[in-house]
Amino acid sequence: MSDLETRLAELEHRVGELEDIQAIRRLHWAYGYYIDFNRPDEVADLFAEKGSVVFLSGEYVGKEGVKRLYGDWIQQRFTGGRPGPVHGLLLDHFQMQDIITVAPDRQSAKGRFHGILLGGWHDDFQETKEEMMPQQFMEAGIYENDYVREDGVWKIQRLNYMMQWQADYESGWAHTTAHLQPAAKTYPEDPIGPDVLLPESEHRETWPYRQDVPMHFAHPKFGAILAGREKG
Amino acid sequence: MSDLETRLAELEHRVGELEDIQAIRRLHWAYGYYIDFNRPDEVADLFAEKGSVVFLSGEYVGKEGVKRLYGDWIQQRFTGGRPGPVHGLLLDHFQMQDIITVAPDRQSAKGRFHGILLGGWHDDFQETKEEMMPQQFMEAGIYENDYVREDGVWKIQRLNYMMQWQADYESGWAHTTAHLQPAAKTYPEDPIGPDVLLPESEHRETWPYRQDVPMHFAHPKFGAILAGREKG
Amino acid sequence: MSDLETRLAELEHRVGELEDIQAIRRLHWAYGYYIDFNRPDEVADLFAEKGSVVFLSGEYVGKEGVKRLYGDWIQQRFTGGRPGPVHGLLLDHFQMQDIITVAPDRQSAKGRFHGILLGGWHDDFQETKEEMMPQQFMEAGIYENDYVREDGVWKIQRLNYMMQWQADYESGWAHTTAHLQPAAKTYPEDPIGPDVLLPESEHRETWPYRQDVPMHFAHPKFGAILAGREKG
Repeated sequence: MSDLETRLAELEHRVGELEDIQAIRRLHWAYGYYIDFNRPDEVADLFAEKGSVVFLSGEYVGKEGVKRLYGDWIQQRFTGGRPGPVHGLLLDHFQMQDIITVAPDRQSAKGRFHGILLGGWHDDFQETKEEMMPQQFMEAGIYENDYVREDGVWKIQRLNYMMQWQADYESGWAHTTAHLQPAAKTYPEDPIGPDVLLPESEHRETWPYRQDVPMHFAHPKFGAILAGREKG
Repeated sequence: MSDLETRLAELEHRVGELEDIQAIRRLHWAYGYYIDFNRPDEVADLFAEKGSVVFLSGEYVGKEGVKRLYGDWIQQRFTGGRPGPVHGLLLDHFQMQDIITVAPDRQSAKGRFHGILLGGWHDDFQETKEEMMPQQFMEAGIYENDYVREDGVWKIQRLNYMMQWQADYESGWAHTTAHLQPAAKTYPEDPIGPDVLLPESEHRETWPYRQDVPMHFAHPKFGAILAGREKG
Repeated sequence: MSDLETRLAELEHRVGELEDIQAIRRLHWAYGYYIDFNRPDEVADLFAEKGSVVFLSGEYVGKEGVKRLYGDWIQQRFTGGRPGPVHGLLLDHFQMQDIITVAPDRQSAKGRFHGILLGGWHDDFQETKEEMMPQQFMEAGIYENDYVREDGVWKIQRLNYMMQWQADYESGWAHTTAHLQPAAKTYPEDPIGPDVLLPESEHRETWPYRQDVPMHFAHPKFGAILAGREKG
């Protein structure tokens, strides 16, 4: 192989990695836009065949698990099962601060994101008024997700959402205990429950309790990647 | 053409597309920074010659239309016509969650963004206190914009801002009816009005009313691009 | 040098620039995640040997200065010196809207970012309750930072944080005077003070006072880069 061909092959790999990062950012932002509007089918399409999502210390497994969480639970609670947006109903998820690390073979990746949720319903809203949910609330969380390239397309392998706090709008984070507590029962005993509960070591009490959220990119191996590499 | 040259030409195209995405993100973030500070001239420079902006179901056309909206209306209302920032005056637009899709010929593109606005004036602020505007308010919206490469530089072809909700700070989104309502009259009958009203089918009532915000990237053609492509 | 080699070398430079931008975004997002959790050592690792940080019109110089600000002052105030997260304590910095411009020789760069801070402590929190800090507050700021490639790795040369406003949660930005005022004394007279005060011309009164925040990317030279370049 000529010197030119070697350089070209290396450059193709570097460009491929930049495209991977771009594709995964796009995947997560799309996830955000779909959950704003309560679209469980579109959300499920973003997951790998054996993908899963972690929410409130429970793991929802496979496309069925994903749809149970975003459909049977969240969409049902907020919109009575209709895909949104719905008059007077707010569930805005703002997504930002992406740190994505692609494995050397470009077949898997990790991603961390920061999210803010503003939700609730307007006085004019005449439908589902779930007792468990305050009329207007804020929430923030961190994602530490796994991705996989499946049939040539990047998909979510495991979406691990770690809620950091919840706050009723009126009283704020200083005076609110999170209205969502860790899952206690699994499906089907709880018809909207997760397939499995996380092991005790990964169980997370909610606000005002806090836990560390380990950063995949602070790993010694990824540390060097963190701040760039000299590449000529 | 040799095999190496073919591979190089393909790679040049892929790198060009990554640069396009980067340039368009930058263009939208710059737009955000300029409107924070009420700089209608700088905002207008980001638009194509025949660019336009959609706001409250009305379309402001050309550089004159853009300046009418960001200058004669918004800057005039907030700062009395002075470029900001201005003491005691807040109009912070936080921009995030970019999904940008470049056309195969790299001459046009589409972009979706999420934005939050925190605005109002401090008690110390002694100037324009527009009756129509609450003293402190929040707003969020989604953009679905069109871009064009003009004389080799990416410009905004059509900025389509779709306000999702407004909330007085004191009462929140649950108890606020949007203080901004859809445009009813055009320029010059309304000296700060749009050049044209959107057709009835695109007319958008404001919060607590909601409408769908179609996602350009969910288009079947762009769907494959959404989650990345295998490229070796 | 053959035509192919010339094209390849040019493309290597363009890809390197895209990688630089990606590395610097990642560097700033990591900074955000570390300050959320009060990790002054990890923060200091992101800075160049002679790096510095500007906060409240004072400049903290070198790794010692960086640790004095994020450790002796902020971590001490919020968590009593423990690395976080800490039960009942909130200090979420949401980072977004990156505009990064790499110098032609790819050895230095500039970056602008937008940040929101939500902070305070829960009623259950039994520790440091600093009198100077309201129990729940919001803040926003703009960064105009300098970066340098040091030993092949991108580092922060000068982090220039310009707070734009602060607001007690209860009363909002309309009725709050910033609880943080410009630095008045330097270290060691003030044991948590900066090494130097900015010159009078760069001194910044805090909210409701406002100052311009010049945009590095609006510089005539960088203007052409702003909206992309035609590259074939």
